Amino acid sequence: MRLRVKDLAISTGNPKIALLNHTDAQKYDLHFADRVRIKKGKREVTAIIDITDSNELLLPGQIGLFKEVYSDIKAKDDDVVNVSIEQKPKSVEHIKKKLKGKELKYNEMKDIVDDIVDGRLSEIELTYFVASTYVYEMSDEEIVHLINCILKTGDILKLEGEKTILDKHCIGGVAGNRTTMVVVPIVAAAGLIMPKTSSRSITSAAGTADTVEVLCDVSYPLEDMKKIVQSTGACLMWGGAMNLAPADDKIIKVEHPVSLDPIGQLLASILAKKKSVSATHVLIDIPVGPGCKTDCMERAKHLKNKFEELGKKINMKVHVEITDGSQPIGKGIGPALEARDVLWTLQNSENSAIDLKNKSIRLAGKIFELVGEAKKGQGWRKAKKILENGDAYKKFIEIIKEQKPKVTTPEKIRLGKYTETICSKKEGIVLHVDNKGINKVARIAGAPQDHKAGVYLHVHKYDKVNKGQELITIYADSKERLKYAEECFFCEEIMLIEKRSQQKK
Amino acid sequence: MRLRVKDLAISTGNPKIALLNHTDAQKYDLHFADRVRIKKGKREVTAIIDITDSNELLLPGQIGLFKEVYSDIKAKDDDVVNVSIEQKPKSVEHIKKKLKGKELKYNEMKDIVDDIVDGRLSEIELTYFVASTYVYEMSDEEIVHLINCILKTGDILKLEGEKTILDKHCIGGVAGNRTTMVVVPIVAAAGLIMPKTSSRSITSAAGTADTVEVLCDVSYPLEDMKKIVQSTGACLMWGGAMNLAPADDKIIKVEHPVSLDPIGQLLASILAKKKSVSATHVLIDIPVGPGCKTDCMERAKHLKNKFEELGKKINMKVHVEITDGSQPIGKGIGPALEARDVLWTLQNSENSAIDLKNKSIRLAGKIFELVGEAKKGQGWRKAKKILENGDAYKKFIEIIKEQKPKVTTPEKIRLGKYTETICSKKEGIVLHVDNKGINKVARIAGAPQDHKAGVYLHVHKYDKVNKGQELITIYADSKERLKYAEECFFCEEIMLIEKRSQQKK
Repeated sequence: MRLRVKDLAISTGNPKIALLNHTDAQKYDLHFADRVRIKKGKREVTAIIDITDSNELLLPGQIGLFKEVYSDIKAKDDDVVNVSIEQKPKSVEHIKKKLKGKELKYNEMKDIVDDIVDGRLSEIELTYFVASTYVYEMSDEEIVHLINCILKTGDILKLEGEKTILDKHCIGGVAGNRTTMVVVPIVAAAGLIMPKTSSRSITSAAGTADTVEVLCDVSYPLEDMKKIVQSTGACLMWGGAMNLAPADDKIIKVEHPVSLDPIGQLLASILAKKKSVSATHVLIDIPVGPGCKTDCMERAKHLKNKFEELGKKINMKVHVEITDGSQPIGKGIGPALEARDVLWTLQNSENSAIDLKNKSIRLAGKIFELVGEAKKGQGWRKAKKILENGDAYKKFIEIIKEQKPKVTTPEKIRLGKYTETICSKKEGIVLHVDNKGINKVARIAGAPQDHKAGVYLHVHKYDKVNKGQELITIYADSKERLKYAEECFFCEEIMLIEKRSQQKK
Repeated sequence: MRLRVKDLAISTGNPKIALLNHTDAQKYDLHFADRVRIKKGKREVTAIIDITDSNELLLPGQIGLFKEVYSDIKAKDDDVVNVSIEQKPKSVEHIKKKLKGKELKYNEMKDIVDDIVDGRLSEIELTYFVASTYVYEMSDEEIVHLINCILKTGDILKLEGEKTILDKHCIGGVAGNRTTMVVVPIVAAAGLIMPKTSSRSITSAAGTADTVEVLCDVSYPLEDMKKIVQSTGACLMWGGAMNLAPADDKIIKVEHPVSLDPIGQLLASILAKKKSVSATHVLIDIPVGPGCKTDCMERAKHLKNKFEELGKKINMKVHVEITDGSQPIGKGIGPALEARDVLWTLQNSENSAIDLKNKSIRLAGKIFELVGEAKKGQGWRKAKKILENGDAYKKFIEIIKEQKPKVTTPEKIRLGKYTETICSKKEGIVLHVDNKGINKVARIAGAPQDHKAGVYLHVHKYDKVNKGQELITIYADSKERLKYAEECFFCEEIMLIEKRSQQKK
């Protein structure tokens, strides 16, 4: 069939969609989610069919192209294209196989991942894939297949001559918690290689990439990353700017609507990202606490075993630390406030957050033990020394200077111009500081898009407070946002303060 | 937040979608698949968020409304609407519960079905629901809940004073097979009540509704259906014109892309449709054969037991006949050719298809036995008598006359003006006639949208053929379609003819 192109100027984000008028769909016996091959000259593309019954939008004889399809064949409005029916990709059959509880082989997994990356699977088909791996937990073999397939569809950082390459990762959920920005310079100051890529926030007040961005640029192509790591031993960059494991984001998109996180997808996603920077030794931080991704010790231990076992199978030494995720780490929540905490900690300032410092020393120490730079249980001493003697700060500034620095003095970091400090209405003990709640207040104040917005915590869990004592300060760039954030803090039970006597009940 | 409406003039079919510019999505912390409440004056609607990064399509400050949302709040371009964030519906949590393998309670199922019908679930969420019931087969209790919930969201035919109301259903897959149009008049001629609604074809060459439409109108509102049934004892109508079980079509839409058909959804879908016409006695025909929905006897028997057990739980007498689905039933395939077969069979013409006649007599006989109008094993005698003495034909004409008849003489039914007859290239025995293949040839010729298109089968399975003997005739309304259909017949192994001696191999 021959149809005239209409540019719909809509991007779908991934699946390649073409729209037909319902009259043509009937005529050519095409159904929702069927596939067609669209040819214009020598260029061709496979698209998934959607159908409209609106003649205003699309006349019979026209084919509406979404952006991804339009640009693939370099179409112009009113171009006439050849459209032919195409079979469903084989990957759809593999997904059905997994939905029946059967194990997928390497080639089957490869078909699925290739089709995800190339936009050949509709959201519905991708959803069935995620559901199948949620219900039938992937075997270790399947996860290894998935990791290898994700790696094949993306770029890989190769650092010739380096035998030991480090990485770390934290399974999210704890507000603040910017240990990466302290751990990386400690480790690099000891002469080790740590090409760190991080993500931006999806549901929290800041991701590591958002926070680093307060101080310097984070978006670099792979070649620049390689040069910076070769020069300083490390980097602090946004992984999304590179094409390191592109299948992953597309899978995450359909997990989000029902907050599904099949354990096999989680393992494959993290390990593939680490493998894509050629990491040989990886530390994984699993915080456990209410509101964390891992809210019970049993799941944390199961994950720990899985990570360490899978590491062996992909030739990667993995150590998992299970940590306390019961409250925020650090005082600032939101990109600018967190960046300030990091700088203060690296400068050994009296303003530094002791919990952030201690956790960073512990994690860096475990990395030293993992690569044999310290005896078991003794790594923290080396990490503490490097942090406290200023070597880590020097290394941090060296890295930042390679990434077009914006500000390096904590006092010069700009914060939201409107502030509101909330004080305790009673005397007592802080029994709970809610991670999700604090993140929400900071987000309503504007974080992470507004780097300057966020929450400063004057107190932490188990602190004693007097009536009238400062609890939190909210920073925002508009009075309206400030007011909404304040209301949110009061509406939800974000900070629980009880008298000592009540605590025993 | 306040946004300006832009009419996108696209219909999604069901989920209510609103599009935001990515700048606004960031500003208001809204993500793909989040929900918003949109208010214009006193009208309001909940919509699911999609995000575009195209400023051509949608500027910051605008909200793009898909048709379903646009009409719900009677919006106009450039109207300013109030938009506020809304929580995910509870049904999403229930779907996750089922994905974890837990059983759903009545109220949970009700939330899900209500949200499906009202377009409050995204396609991704609905897909997770179907996947969950595919992997964890629904219990009888869950299926009964689902049936009751589907019934509550649609209309119900009530025939006051009638104690016995009949219905029948065939699990598809056999080409031709228009028994309903023969069974209904036999049963109604015996004085029984059979308010029959049927579907149009989705993947075959014709549905019962498409075939009846060759002879008379099939789209009527519920009130007219009631009048016609009260006057003639039966009707032959398209269920899609009424609002009898609206949840069903929406579920089927997400099953189609991966051809999933969870058994619980199948049972609930069919039984809810039967219950919506208040049927008390139901005959289900399960054809078994290659290419049928039920391709093995084991699944057919499992389905039979499930149907009959569930019938008891919803106060409905259900009998399942397992029949031969190994080849097409009747000679004509395609609406007009099938309608002609039906008329010839009802007229006891020498042209009638003996297989269609015999199967119809068997099924009508089973219905007589089910309601106690005949002894077990003897119903067929009564059915045969009513068909052969012309009573069934009289009743059929009576029903058709109530539904605005178009043509009632088989010879006057118009067929495609271009024909091609394919003859056997060798002598032998017909060993296989492929249901899917024959349907495909007929569809390529133009069926079911072009009623006049289709395939006439000169031979059936086990017939002896000579070299040069006619096998099939294709009917189409264009030379091009005729050629494509002919090519399809030769490409795929649709009719297998072997010499006797080879058969024994």
